[in-house]
Amino acid sequence: MMKLHWSPRSPFVRKVMVAAHELGLADRIRTVRTVAAMLKPAQDLMPDNPLAKIPTLVLEDGTVLYDSIVIVEYLDSLAGHRLIPREGTTRFTELRRHALGNGFLDLLILWRNERDKPAPLPALLDAFKLKTDAVLPAIEKEIEAVAAAPLGIAQITFAIAGAYMDFRFPDLGWRERCPRFDDWQRGFAARPSMRATEIVDA
Amino acid sequence: MMKLHWSPRSPFVRKVMVAAHELGLADRIRTVRTVAAMLKPAQDLMPDNPLAKIPTLVLEDGTVLYDSIVIVEYLDSLAGHRLIPREGTTRFTELRRHALGNGFLDLLILWRNERDKPAPLPALLDAFKLKTDAVLPAIEKEIEAVAAAPLGIAQITFAIAGAYMDFRFPDLGWRERCPRFDDWQRGFAARPSMRATEIVDA
Repeated sequence: MMKLHWSPRSPFVRKVMVAAHELGLADRIRTVRTVAAMLKPAQDLMPDNPLAKIPTLVLEDGTVLYDSIVIVEYLDSLAGHRLIPREGTTRFTELRRHALGNGFLDLLILWRNERDKPAPLPALLDAFKLKTDAVLPAIEKEIEAVAAAPLGIAQITFAIAGAYMDFRFPDLGWRERCPRFDDWQRGFAARPSMRATEIVDA
Repeated sequence: MMKLHWSPRSPFVRKVMVAAHELGLADRIRTVRTVAAMLKPAQDLMPDNPLAKIPTLVLEDGTVLYDSIVIVEYLDSLAGHRLIPREGTTRFTELRRHALGNGFLDLLILWRNERDKPAPLPALLDAFKLKTDAVLPAIEKEIEAVAAAPLGIAQITFAIAGAYMDFRFPDLGWRERCPRFDDWQRGFAARPSMRATEIVDA
């Protein structure tokens, strides 16, 4: 069994788990609950990953892999390269779209951390809002091309970003602002891989 | 010509430029100075990259690529895959080592942003210090294996992380704390690719 440092609410962990389900590898991964918060680094995780970030995957031979896209590519290589095209334009388009969805998740997490501080910096909150106001229309514009492509890590990441906004940023109103993204995301969220990894509020 | 949204002090931009020099592609890239700060998103960059992050590469046909590792892999694919092994254990080891160096750079940049705020959150500064105190020994422990591997994106990223600490975190004393990393980094920093991309304080 592989061991995955895991939490039920991390969108980056969810990306790995959705990929594992889609690839038929979920039953080869044992998840270990790891609480890795910005303010409270997970000290028990640091021997495997000194950055104290999840997801972190430990293979049977002890090899450690991170970050999430490296883990996804590794799992994909075990299952015949079905989520990331191996080369050419389709590969770099898939990886650039993943970087958009993943960078958006990074932004949302930093925004949430700042927002929840005793004294958030207003200029920083403004900057996160400004970027989000650029990212949402960009995703809305591209989502039909994303939806038309084969199942891959870009689709998985955008679908998770939508669910993450529902969970942590309900006031953004992303579903009203991005009707095509909303419609596509609702369909994707019905996949067994997404249902099996739904965000749980503890 | 490809166009690269660039700044002289971003370590992620530097990673792309060192890779371009090592691959003999630097003269096919036109750099465009872009000021992308956490508090001041670069609005002129957003049409190419709504996350407003550098580096962002625009190909001759208008295709946009980000983030930095996607750009590096693209350039590497143009030059015969010399900086990232194409498959197998060596690929995932190279990518995991890159993720360590790159995640450390992410951490240092967030640390600097917090440190420079009017009212930094002490618990957050403590968390950055705790992680850095785990990352530095991890790099020191692994640097001989990294140095023994062929030139690749892991070496480039660790060398840039060292230079970035000299520039932004001189008080860390990383060279005293990590004598093997120090020694190796001094040698790597003498490469023409590193000399051509030295961090300039404006």
